[in-house]
Amino acid sequence: MGSKRAVVSLGHNALGYTTAEQWDAVKHTAKALADLSEEGYALAITHSNGPQVSMIHKAMTELRRIYPDYSPAAMCVCSAMSEGYVGYDIQNSLKGELLSRGISRNVATVLTQVTVDPYDDAFYHPSKVIGRHMTAEEAAMEERKGNYTKEDPGKGYLRVVATPKPLEIVEIDAIRLLYDAGVIVIAAGGGGIPVIEQNCVLKGASAVIEKDSIASLLAKKLEADRLIILTGVNCVKKNFCRENEEDLRQLTVSEARKLMEEGQFEEGTMKPKIEAAIDFLSARSDAEVLITGMDEIEDAIAGKNGTRLIKDAF
Amino acid sequence: MGSKRAVVSLGHNALGYTTAEQWDAVKHTAKALADLSEEGYALAITHSNGPQVSMIHKAMTELRRIYPDYSPAAMCVCSAMSEGYVGYDIQNSLKGELLSRGISRNVATVLTQVTVDPYDDAFYHPSKVIGRHMTAEEAAMEERKGNYTKEDPGKGYLRVVATPKPLEIVEIDAIRLLYDAGVIVIAAGGGGIPVIEQNCVLKGASAVIEKDSIASLLAKKLEADRLIILTGVNCVKKNFCRENEEDLRQLTVSEARKLMEEGQFEEGTMKPKIEAAIDFLSARSDAEVLITGMDEIEDAIAGKNGTRLIKDAF
Repeated sequence: MGSKRAVVSLGHNALGYTTAEQWDAVKHTAKALADLSEEGYALAITHSNGPQVSMIHKAMTELRRIYPDYSPAAMCVCSAMSEGYVGYDIQNSLKGELLSRGISRNVATVLTQVTVDPYDDAFYHPSKVIGRHMTAEEAAMEERKGNYTKEDPGKGYLRVVATPKPLEIVEIDAIRLLYDAGVIVIAAGGGGIPVIEQNCVLKGASAVIEKDSIASLLAKKLEADRLIILTGVNCVKKNFCRENEEDLRQLTVSEARKLMEEGQFEEGTMKPKIEAAIDFLSARSDAEVLITGMDEIEDAIAGKNGTRLIKDAF
Repeated sequence: MGSKRAVVSLGHNALGYTTAEQWDAVKHTAKALADLSEEGYALAITHSNGPQVSMIHKAMTELRRIYPDYSPAAMCVCSAMSEGYVGYDIQNSLKGELLSRGISRNVATVLTQVTVDPYDDAFYHPSKVIGRHMTAEEAAMEERKGNYTKEDPGKGYLRVVATPKPLEIVEIDAIRLLYDAGVIVIAAGGGGIPVIEQNCVLKGASAVIEKDSIASLLAKKLEADRLIILTGVNCVKKNFCRENEEDLRQLTVSEARKLMEEGQFEEGTMKPKIEAAIDFLSARSDAEVLITGMDEIEDAIAGKNGTRLIKDAF
């Protein structure tokens, strides 16, 4: 592998669910990222923020309940807070890990907005669950405010938001400038803050962008040669969690597409990763995608673990 | 004025106190910043975060009270969230304002850590009030956790944190790279996230850095020619709020120091601004500092309002 421009996408297991868990998890994550840095990669890092934005959304909701003078915090504001929160933990741990190895490389988080299409089909079918359980009355109030909720049988109601596709990364020039200069850039955390461009206004959208689709877009925009998707399993599986489960160590785009059509990859977990990989490889045919776990990253880079996705051989 | 490298420090009145107030205030602030951009300035923006970090700290405290499974959010984490929150609002409004003027200039927020000295005298005399009022029992519990509190007579107890001096801006290289490339950079919001460097670890400190002192440090590091401190008054005053109040339109460092020694400038409001101005001008003698209000910035730039601070004429 001569290619040295990577984008890394971190899943929940790289971050944990509470402030204490995240603090421990990112220290471990920082080691894997520092290893990649030591191998000479230009690195951009994006990450999930589901538990983080849920925690912040809950906190801001409780604040208003107790201090009604505070105005509500929109989803886009909670998302911005989560980029600050997770970005800080990653850049702090990674900078510390690099310092401990005698490496003076810079790390920076760029707060990122991402435009979405107001007519994206996802806005008509919101499906991403956020926040705490509500009573039927609270859910009805949310619906009256224009928000969507769904029943979680036996537990109450949950707010659901749309997951539109990312169109453009508003701060891409700043991110590219840092990336090209060798700064390790943390960007578009939690998929980025979704905004809708309307008459020169970037209006915060009540939505969440899937981190896998933003990772693909970021990797395309940065002309990366390698998109590394870190997740909870060592590699992509056929017949996942069944008796005849099988490790998939290499997949071409056609093979991946065929398995996806057979329903091999679970919605919301592996399927969006495979879709992101296909999307990236369609734009950057000489590139590759690596899907692996946090603990297997070193072996996966060396070709001894993980799943490598590449274009079809013609 | 041929100089075109500016650092702007935004005070509370540029941001407001709640999410709704901030959203309105930054739209107004964005116009003043876009005006400076149109005048051809390289721009770095720093801002206060007192009300914002207090709001987040309160929210995270209430969250834990209701959902005890969540671990506490340290001050540094709340500070990181506030950088995300305020940075997003400013970059979003400013980008929109620039777009509406047909200007494609980039705006980006860089999450910023700032090192402080663990032996800074401020750690022995914490004085900055944060968060909500507590009962005597709650205050005692905070003290047992190693935090400081003080009584607010008749209202309860408040947590107080230290305000150490900033030493180094950890992400300065990334900030400078963007600034030199013409990106408008929002950085070191709320004084930056204070960290103590100990054995290659950047340990988050339970402290707040004053935004005026970070503005001076940032302006020095970026070799700015102009430090613009935006505040709630049109200019610096002698005998402020007294019958013989007098506008001070120009001050040399010596004059400013003399007035400060006479006790002319209020602690916590104008005094830290004058100190920051003196600190900056001591390092960059050909530069100038402008202290003015949000609504007077245009006139102040044109020399018709505000207070201009310069080095002494020898």
